[in-house]
Amino acid sequence: MNFISDNIAGASPKVMAAIAAANDGPASAYGTDGWTQATERRIAEIFEHEVAVFLVTSGTAANALALASLTRPWGAVITHEESHVADDECGAPEFFSDGAKLIGLPGAGNKLSPADVTQTLARFREGALHQVQPQVLSITQATECGTIYTPYEIRALKAAAAPRSLALHMDGARFANALVTLGCSPAETTWKAGIDVLSFGGTKNGAWAAEAVVFFDPARAAEMKWRRKRAGQTLSKGRLIGAQFEGLLADGHWLDLARYANALAQRLAQAIGRSTQARLAWPCQANEVFLILSPALQARLKAAGVGYIDWSARALPVGEALAEGEVVGRFVMSFATPEADVTRLIALIEAAEG
Amino acid sequence: MNFISDNIAGASPKVMAAIAAANDGPASAYGTDGWTQATERRIAEIFEHEVAVFLVTSGTAANALALASLTRPWGAVITHEESHVADDECGAPEFFSDGAKLIGLPGAGNKLSPADVTQTLARFREGALHQVQPQVLSITQATECGTIYTPYEIRALKAAAAPRSLALHMDGARFANALVTLGCSPAETTWKAGIDVLSFGGTKNGAWAAEAVVFFDPARAAEMKWRRKRAGQTLSKGRLIGAQFEGLLADGHWLDLARYANALAQRLAQAIGRSTQARLAWPCQANEVFLILSPALQARLKAAGVGYIDWSARALPVGEALAEGEVVGRFVMSFATPEADVTRLIALIEAAEG
Amino acid sequence: MNFISDNIAGASPKVMAAIAAANDGPASAYGTDGWTQATERRIAEIFEHEVAVFLVTSGTAANALALASLTRPWGAVITHEESHVADDECGAPEFFSDGAKLIGLPGAGNKLSPADVTQTLARFREGALHQVQPQVLSITQATECGTIYTPYEIRALKAAAAPRSLALHMDGARFANALVTLGCSPAETTWKAGIDVLSFGGTKNGAWAAEAVVFFDPARAAEMKWRRKRAGQTLSKGRLIGAQFEGLLADGHWLDLARYANALAQRLAQAIGRSTQARLAWPCQANEVFLILSPALQARLKAAGVGYIDWSARALPVGEALAEGEVVGRFVMSFATPEADVTRLIALIEAAEG
Amino acid sequence: MNFISDNIAGASPKVMAAIAAANDGPASAYGTDGWTQATERRIAEIFEHEVAVFLVTSGTAANALALASLTRPWGAVITHEESHVADDECGAPEFFSDGAKLIGLPGAGNKLSPADVTQTLARFREGALHQVQPQVLSITQATECGTIYTPYEIRALKAAAAPRSLALHMDGARFANALVTLGCSPAETTWKAGIDVLSFGGTKNGAWAAEAVVFFDPARAAEMKWRRKRAGQTLSKGRLIGAQFEGLLADGHWLDLARYANALAQRLAQAIGRSTQARLAWPCQANEVFLILSPALQARLKAAGVGYIDWSARALPVGEALAEGEVVGRFVMSFATPEADVTRLIALIEAAEG
Repeated sequence: MNFISDNIAGASPKVMAAIAAANDGPASAYGTDGWTQATERRIAEIFEHEVAVFLVTSGTAANALALASLTRPWGAVITHEESHVADDECGAPEFFSDGAKLIGLPGAGNKLSPADVTQTLARFREGALHQVQPQVLSITQATECGTIYTPYEIRALKAAAAPRSLALHMDGARFANALVTLGCSPAETTWKAGIDVLSFGGTKNGAWAAEAVVFFDPARAAEMKWRRKRAGQTLSKGRLIGAQFEGLLADGHWLDLARYANALAQRLAQAIGRSTQARLAWPCQANEVFLILSPALQARLKAAGVGYIDWSARALPVGEALAEGEVVGRFVMSFATPEADVTRLIALIEAAEG
Repeated sequence: MNFISDNIAGASPKVMAAIAAANDGPASAYGTDGWTQATERRIAEIFEHEVAVFLVTSGTAANALALASLTRPWGAVITHEESHVADDECGAPEFFSDGAKLIGLPGAGNKLSPADVTQTLARFREGALHQVQPQVLSITQATECGTIYTPYEIRALKAAAAPRSLALHMDGARFANALVTLGCSPAETTWKAGIDVLSFGGTKNGAWAAEAVVFFDPARAAEMKWRRKRAGQTLSKGRLIGAQFEGLLADGHWLDLARYANALAQRLAQAIGRSTQARLAWPCQANEVFLILSPALQARLKAAGVGYIDWSARALPVGEALAEGEVVGRFVMSFATPEADVTRLIALIEAAEG
Repeated sequence: MNFISDNIAGASPKVMAAIAAANDGPASAYGTDGWTQATERRIAEIFEHEVAVFLVTSGTAANALALASLTRPWGAVITHEESHVADDECGAPEFFSDGAKLIGLPGAGNKLSPADVTQTLARFREGALHQVQPQVLSITQATECGTIYTPYEIRALKAAAAPRSLALHMDGARFANALVTLGCSPAETTWKAGIDVLSFGGTKNGAWAAEAVVFFDPARAAEMKWRRKRAGQTLSKGRLIGAQFEGLLADGHWLDLARYANALAQRLAQAIGRSTQARLAWPCQANEVFLILSPALQARLKAAGVGYIDWSARALPVGEALAEGEVVGRFVMSFATPEADVTRLIALIEAAEG
Repeated sequence: MNFISDNIAGASPKVMAAIAAANDGPASAYGTDGWTQATERRIAEIFEHEVAVFLVTSGTAANALALASLTRPWGAVITHEESHVADDECGAPEFFSDGAKLIGLPGAGNKLSPADVTQTLARFREGALHQVQPQVLSITQATECGTIYTPYEIRALKAAAAPRSLALHMDGARFANALVTLGCSPAETTWKAGIDVLSFGGTKNGAWAAEAVVFFDPARAAEMKWRRKRAGQTLSKGRLIGAQFEGLLADGHWLDLARYANALAQRLAQAIGRSTQARLAWPCQANEVFLILSPALQARLKAAGVGYIDWSARALPVGEALAEGEVVGRFVMSFATPEADVTRLIALIEAAEG
């Protein structure tokens, strides 16, 4: 029972099949192959928009390249203080952008509020000589604590950023999980809501190592080919990524995988119900469940070999506090999580009530 | 008949099988999985030395990370002026090293000479304030024109670099091809000859996207984990690279693949013989054949749909000159090149004699 | 009546005289001249310690070079969120350090507290792969709101930083102003309290453009000569800076200048007394006075042509709030501020009581 | 008799007087003072063109900021292999540009030839993924070996660079010396000949530390204020540089100083005549004289305490070779070089004939 992350899984069988199918005969290198080109077309169709697409092998690279293409070295990226770009990438955005600053804001459920964005922008006078210049707003969908932004909320953030013409970036490492919860179209939660560049994640949702930087305004991508190459992210056998995306995106497989993971997360979240040993830290809106666990339940889970991450070092929801011995546990579901594991986990929690 | 590069192939069936075998159950992320660890052990065995190993997805990343870990931003890397790091990576070493300088030297057969190294070092006074400080010597094995360094030659370069304590880096994108020609042990052509860090290539030799930065002095690698992470090269599902290397390295498969490719190259090179329509630009010592092609032969190859790269923009061997209409064609063999294609190519060349 | 900053003044007459005296005959270039060497010796004497000294022309350069020499690109600098390095240098520390992260903490009177440092360090696990690594603690003496750290407070910060071996940097743009208030020796508030590197400011205290990066452990400075050169901060006619420091440091002139400026600030601060139109935002401990000004007083000052900076955008002291129309005004005294200006300013404030 | 460099002098008396005159009363900071603004206007008048001007304290900073503003990190700067930017600034252009590549070309008299530029551009295919993109051509006026470009030659270089739209940068550390030799207007040898950005040197020509980056197309300078600030080159007491330039530029003082230095150089060069102990390495066209010195003359100069730099490590003119024991000596004249020193030096050379 390993709920540590969605990156402990391998690839979905369909992704593996797509790679195997692509492993036949020569193909031109550096992303000029047919699989990559098909992926580019398919992403345009999925998002109902002209796009410029750059495939890379990691979410860190996708985010850092996206941010670097949207900000100058003396620019700043406004983001949540616990976002992946701010806190989990060892300064990759700073590296790729040649030293831009990330401004981390607090925010309930790891989400930015338009008011905080407005207030932050006021602190950085436009054109001021001594200060970095905010140029990007970066949000995560779904967030690091499993919550999601509605298209309405995204539009409100865009509006807050508009007076300073900030670009809006979405870290979509778990984009599919957010999308199936929202039930809207990919377009509605991206460019129609004001997103300029999306890090479209495949890895956490059934690929091995496949992420796409998607520019909804291809003109903004004019220099990305050099950025990506220079960063060592232009695979010579580029079809490896193209094929993974083909496996994922064909026939809505990516959405099926996300629905499965989300459903497992919902099962767990709803099973908590009136438990006295566990309560939800945040609402479960994607494929992650954050539970505040009593010491007794922790002991039971440990004894049963249940793997999860202790999330207690992060900010708690406002008004929430951990009692003595309690921890916040993160439980992540993926396409590969066995249903039976969730069933057993729920049973363990219920048994703790006794 | 596509001889454009060794990166137009996919992966060897054994590599695919290893990936498929690795795609089972959860594994810990970010390179802490069993496949990666097995690869690290295996590389230590192959090189008969304690090593620190960092797996990445591209040769550009491997080289740039290796060089960045060996030089300061005000340092310089001495390399051949047509080496991959100098000329084909869009400035990746400069990016990863925060602006170090690459000093490109000429050299027959794309190889550096100890005398040129010594002379170059003399131009950069040790400790001088106004000049960058040479800190690394980087050589390519096999070189970009298919030649190889003997262990003796590498030791001589090390000796030339020793008075200034330069680190010695080997770009081994085609290391296996060089090794099977040399017939020596991996140790003899690396650390025993003075190599400090090796970019150990898998991609061109049957993997999809698998390169290893190998430090023969693990102490030098103390900070690499952050460099790699920050560069977006630490795959979350790290077993993808580990499994590829396992597929390659088990049972000497990597050497078998290189032997096959080299043998095809030798067949072609030897068939040139006393051809009046083609002659070798450089001796064929690995899996690449560089032919100076007459206009008539070029036309025949074009008509037959033979793919190769026009290498004429690069420096010719000393004393060599292209006659009117001649070009230098690069023909690269890989594990996946059909023998029949080489047979047909040879037949085309022979037919041109008539 | 211009109290906008201490950088609106020119140079002290003694500094000008020193420059003029130095402008005679040839001198060796790039900081090898006698004035620079004399300054290096004098700084060693003043601080009663072996030092490595690097003269530069701006505080931004001094701080950025100091921080870059103490942290790796994946490192982090803990500092106050309103410190000059964090908020007023347009990302210079990020540029010079190739992308290190500045972590800004709140703190009363723009001062860091040991508890906050400890808590922050706990958020960044030592050696963690995904996070930047805190490597420096940077404090400002005197701070941006005119307060000072006692040697005791500095030692407490050093102790908080010690478990992670952070280097301790002091931005001493107004070091002299702090020192004369403290009444201790330069050594006591620097290396004896744990400071590793000091940005020793001359510009704000009577020089034109003269700052010194002072390493109390010369071994840490081994690479600074290249950093400084590469940053364009190694003046060819280096005696220009050396002479300024000679003018400042001879016969304690620097301390006299700071005492004068501080005394004016104290006069103003004490005159506020029980004013109903102005109150101190922070205690006046150096050469800056921060006054919360009533609308009526603002109008009087404006009418009288009094120049000051509106500091209201910064964080207020805890428990303080601005009433409708109030602003925080910053009044800075320098060696060149006429006493009569302060007398007139005080008279204006007193007249507002009527 | 110190002919080591033109940076061993201090400042011209008129420059000192201008600084003293500027040291009166408050002035607004960071380059918004009247002296700086007057300098900006005066430079526009001198060059008969609208300009954007950025004052800095060192030639290294001026050049590195200029180049960084004209090239992307994956761009390349074509320059002479012995130019100051390539060889004497410890990689400052690479640092400021976040890793752009400098491509050094050989060329007689340290001058680039249009044919070499054209040939170099051909090696870098436009838009090619794997190669850095040439974006700037940088020339030095006068060059490091004391030669100068005519406006005609500059226009020819501009024409060679035009097909790829390279920006043309001039390192004018010794611009005044070149100008008085050419006898043309500042406009004719800069923007009228195709120069886009000029590093306009004051330091070597009588200032302490005063250089101006001059953009002839102000639109290109839109981001320079942040670049300069972030590099620590925006002096708070900016009038220090403004005043130096005022001292230099008023009444053509800068040209008088350069004429004096050039005249001394000419005296020395012409005195060589048919000397058997010394011959000119390059024609003397500015304020530097490069003499190939016999061993006997070297001994005499040493005995007499004549200071000069041994330039023998640099490339010799084509067809020139040093006989056993000969060295190339660089003798630099400045505004401050005593005429009597040149007279004595000439006498020493003539005495060596005996």
